[in-house]
Amino acid sequence: MAAYMDRAQNMDEKFGLNRKVRLLGPLTLSNGAQFAPLEFAYESYGTLNEARDNAVLICHALTGDHYVASTHPLTGKPGWWTRMVGEGKPIDPAKYFILCINVLGSCMGSSGPASIDPGTDAPYGMEFPVITINDMVAAQAILLDHLGIETLAAIVGGSMGGMQALAWCTMFPHRVKSAVVIASAARHSAQNIAFHEVGRQAIMADPNWQSGGYYHGDARPSAGLAVARMAAHITYLSEAGLTEKFGRQLQDRESKSFGFDADFQVESYLRHQGISFVERFDANSYLYITRAMDYFDLAEPHGGNLAAAFHGTKTRFCFISFDTDWLYPTSESRRIVQALNAARANVSFVELPSAFGHDSFLLDNPDMNRIVAGFLEAQQ
Amino acid sequence: MAAYMDRAQNMDEKFGLNRKVRLLGPLTLSNGAQFAPLEFAYESYGTLNEARDNAVLICHALTGDHYVASTHPLTGKPGWWTRMVGEGKPIDPAKYFILCINVLGSCMGSSGPASIDPGTDAPYGMEFPVITINDMVAAQAILLDHLGIETLAAIVGGSMGGMQALAWCTMFPHRVKSAVVIASAARHSAQNIAFHEVGRQAIMADPNWQSGGYYHGDARPSAGLAVARMAAHITYLSEAGLTEKFGRQLQDRESKSFGFDADFQVESYLRHQGISFVERFDANSYLYITRAMDYFDLAEPHGGNLAAAFHGTKTRFCFISFDTDWLYPTSESRRIVQALNAARANVSFVELPSAFGHDSFLLDNPDMNRIVAGFLEAQQ
Repeated sequence: MAAYMDRAQNMDEKFGLNRKVRLLGPLTLSNGAQFAPLEFAYESYGTLNEARDNAVLICHALTGDHYVASTHPLTGKPGWWTRMVGEGKPIDPAKYFILCINVLGSCMGSSGPASIDPGTDAPYGMEFPVITINDMVAAQAILLDHLGIETLAAIVGGSMGGMQALAWCTMFPHRVKSAVVIASAARHSAQNIAFHEVGRQAIMADPNWQSGGYYHGDARPSAGLAVARMAAHITYLSEAGLTEKFGRQLQDRESKSFGFDADFQVESYLRHQGISFVERFDANSYLYITRAMDYFDLAEPHGGNLAAAFHGTKTRFCFISFDTDWLYPTSESRRIVQALNAARANVSFVELPSAFGHDSFLLDNPDMNRIVAGFLEAQQ
Repeated sequence: MAAYMDRAQNMDEKFGLNRKVRLLGPLTLSNGAQFAPLEFAYESYGTLNEARDNAVLICHALTGDHYVASTHPLTGKPGWWTRMVGEGKPIDPAKYFILCINVLGSCMGSSGPASIDPGTDAPYGMEFPVITINDMVAAQAILLDHLGIETLAAIVGGSMGGMQALAWCTMFPHRVKSAVVIASAARHSAQNIAFHEVGRQAIMADPNWQSGGYYHGDARPSAGLAVARMAAHITYLSEAGLTEKFGRQLQDRESKSFGFDADFQVESYLRHQGISFVERFDANSYLYITRAMDYFDLAEPHGGNLAAAFHGTKTRFCFISFDTDWLYPTSESRRIVQALNAARANVSFVELPSAFGHDSFLLDNPDMNRIVAGFLEAQQ
């Protein structure tokens, strides 16, 4: 830990907002390679207490970022989880030192394919190593070492954030007192992989992608990335939710145009999702992070025995799934809970009703908030 | 009918295989325009009896064709429904005069965007009119008139074929004695539209699409069309079916490559589906036919009252759905059956178990065959 501190080159004030840190590492990746240096962008809220035992790490999803409760610098929108994090919210900076770190491979400040490779002074592009969820977690652990945080009061994540939380609990079980895993899974299913592969192929089919080397010019593979986002976005919503929200309603017109404009509201909505996404996200990061998710399978190193991944765990677990989530359905949460039961872990599990599918964890859901607040308070 | 016969310009022998017919029309389309001439490619099996009352019309799906029980000329593969159509099969040419017509808008011989517009001597491209399922059916009725077939013993279709069958029963109720509708729906849901929109955007994002005007050069929007096919293909399979078929198994390797090759079998499978599709299908036809499906809503002209669409029907109906079909789920079949019950129609309905989702209607399913055979025999 001290070594990291000594070698750290802080890029702005420690414990200021919009923090950036460059650590020399190196990090040994899942593919066996060494990666260095490690850049981190993160946000924090609240104060680390003297015992240094009130840190809560929030892990973000595929296209998320560290602006969990801060205004996003590109979109100007409020943080993505202000319903959960903030004064008077379940994860309250008055109680906790709350951290959210942009994941390795992303594009919002932490090392990713758009970062400058110091070896070449050019963006990594596809020379960036293929990483895993475990690599993201190992990198986060290095940053926590640097910050002098040995133990997390809690780790909390939805979707890919939940995968990181689970990976933390298997890689560094002694460092995590409790874990909240929402709308997540311990592995990517064939269908999950299939949807990601469609997105990757859409990006790679865009001539502007240029084998990932588009950074030097003005053109970006925006069309491909937008299609990838549109396909993914369908999986974030439920069929019932789409019907409730849009049905077959037409967009700003009284009858069908008999053309290929966005006649239906759902088309207009999806196009908007695609177009607005490309303004804030890097196509290569999308490739790398989806790949990391596809590679995720906690049971794989244990011959498919998921319980073995959690052998001897002392962490308290809380799982929440949503009944209309077909991306990471309740059955996936149940599978993990059963494995934790077999490992004699302390685990609670609730499936919540919601019309809105996977995205429910980002929406207003008082039950979810009550469960998370209650679970975190119970250990104090 | 006679008028059509007189004006018909048969392009090869009537009742020979691989039949093509050009009829002068015109056909009044749903958008109000007149379309002419009408080219038809179709296949037939068996013999029309003297009473001319043993004709069975089989309607094909989105990317299907009229080679229902004949070798496909481009792929060399057997017909797409040889399990259902043929000697000793439920739809037997020994009993029926079986017809299958390439739909209007398609690319296997019937009029579509790749056809030559006689007004310009160039392919229609995006000058081809936006059509509807009803337009496809109205065109088929013109061909049946030409062939001297007033009444169909049965109309049978799965997926978009089922939509045509339903449209037939509302547009020409007196011409259809019985209808078999498999894995279909009476309307496209918001989620159905969303998936189609992703496919269309993938095609239109391909620079080779050139606003649909790619026919004059060598380049085709193959990359975009392949992505569209990949996205659609996921919806044809169930999550359980994908897991059963592929799970997380790797493709021809013992460990992950830490790259962007097709590491997983499901990736390799999807890529193959995309690549092989572009060899046999026209991208513009994909745009037009998906649009026709999105516009499909039988209840719309009746203020949402589906039963009104079938008022007074004398047709016998048989519905089959599959429990894992999430593209056109059982609930959509049930909705139609309830409407037909309200319209006092003669209707039977079975949901069959199958691991393979929407594609089940194309696969070996003895229960489905027994039901179709029994339903057709019961009226003889």
